[in-house]
Amino acid sequence: MPAPIEFYFDFSSPYGYLAAQRIDDLGAAHGREVDWRPFLLGVVFKTTGSEPLLDIPLKGDYARRDLARSARRFGIPFVLPEVFPFPSVPACRAAYWLKAHDPAAAPALMAALYRRAFGEGEDIRTAEAVAEVAAGLGHDRDEILAAMQDPQIKELLKDEVAAAIDKGIFGSPYIVVDSEPFWGFDRLPDIALWLELGGW
Amino acid sequence: MPAPIEFYFDFSSPYGYLAAQRIDDLGAAHGREVDWRPFLLGVVFKTTGSEPLLDIPLKGDYARRDLARSARRFGIPFVLPEVFPFPSVPACRAAYWLKAHDPAAAPALMAALYRRAFGEGEDIRTAEAVAEVAAGLGHDRDEILAAMQDPQIKELLKDEVAAAIDKGIFGSPYIVVDSEPFWGFDRLPDIALWLELGGW
Repeated sequence: MPAPIEFYFDFSSPYGYLAAQRIDDLGAAHGREVDWRPFLLGVVFKTTGSEPLLDIPLKGDYARRDLARSARRFGIPFVLPEVFPFPSVPACRAAYWLKAHDPAAAPALMAALYRRAFGEGEDIRTAEAVAEVAAGLGHDRDEILAAMQDPQIKELLKDEVAAAIDKGIFGSPYIVVDSEPFWGFDRLPDIALWLELGGW
Repeated sequence: MPAPIEFYFDFSSPYGYLAAQRIDDLGAAHGREVDWRPFLLGVVFKTTGSEPLLDIPLKGDYARRDLARSARRFGIPFVLPEVFPFPSVPACRAAYWLKAHDPAAAPALMAALYRRAFGEGEDIRTAEAVAEVAAGLGHDRDEILAAMQDPQIKELLKDEVAAAIDKGIFGSPYIVVDSEPFWGFDRLPDIALWLELGGW
């Protein structure tokens, strides 16, 4: 069994959302599992000195246009939430808790959280909002709420973010195929070619 | 005759160089001329607060790897010059002088300057180095050297850079097709599709 595709993303990243709509199909087409690994871009930005994309003069305006255009191209529902960027710590904690306790169910929760934020423009900032999405998938609301306050889960997320920075991950989406890194939604065709050829 | 493709780039931009190797073929495939418009990314960065790509922690290391990989994918000779990024004011002035005096000959000079820098890793920082490349194409060395000191040409370049910022151009390459902007070498497939469909 070949190694899974490592899919790094921040729940607050709209290009990460676009990638999330296509990454599982891309993996399936090449016989690969996809390991969904949310992280916190805000922590990474402290290392790189970057700012949230849409806040950057000129580039922010372009990104708004490009996001809508990229979503249209692939027929992906897309809306920018009113509060943006938003804190994604609760969503990340819930995701890592489920990865630890029921790994097979975790990608569906992460996909649903992303759809709530960027497919419907709804708030996923709070633990309550995250628990509501999880409850909609049949998870126990109180258990998820408790998990987001669990010191072990908090520590697990810190470790994951530190490991992501150690790996040189500076943006979202950031996708690793057999140790080869690709940054950006627009690199999915490169990834498909890399998987097909085994590199070049 | 449809409008030309506007190809904005900085001579010091390695992704601009990669785009320059393919943009004319892309235009020709869709019956479009390409208007090569060099500008000064350093001036734009004062507006956006950006830094040279390869100087950014983590992102710089990725970009070095991605540049070599992107060049390999398309069989483009690529080497990063020893001094990088480098000032591209002389190259820009020579390009705009030739655009004003012999527009049909200007793209060949710009392509040759880019190849000297990123195909061969040679210096194009100085007026002398730029004049040598121009002389190799049959242009008069002294005339080009005088042009790079001409106050009118200096003013023309300033106006071009100011106009680029007014248009919202924040990176290189930046390509405009019928008022639709595309940023980055990796967007050439999007541009091809846009030209084919007339938008989406």
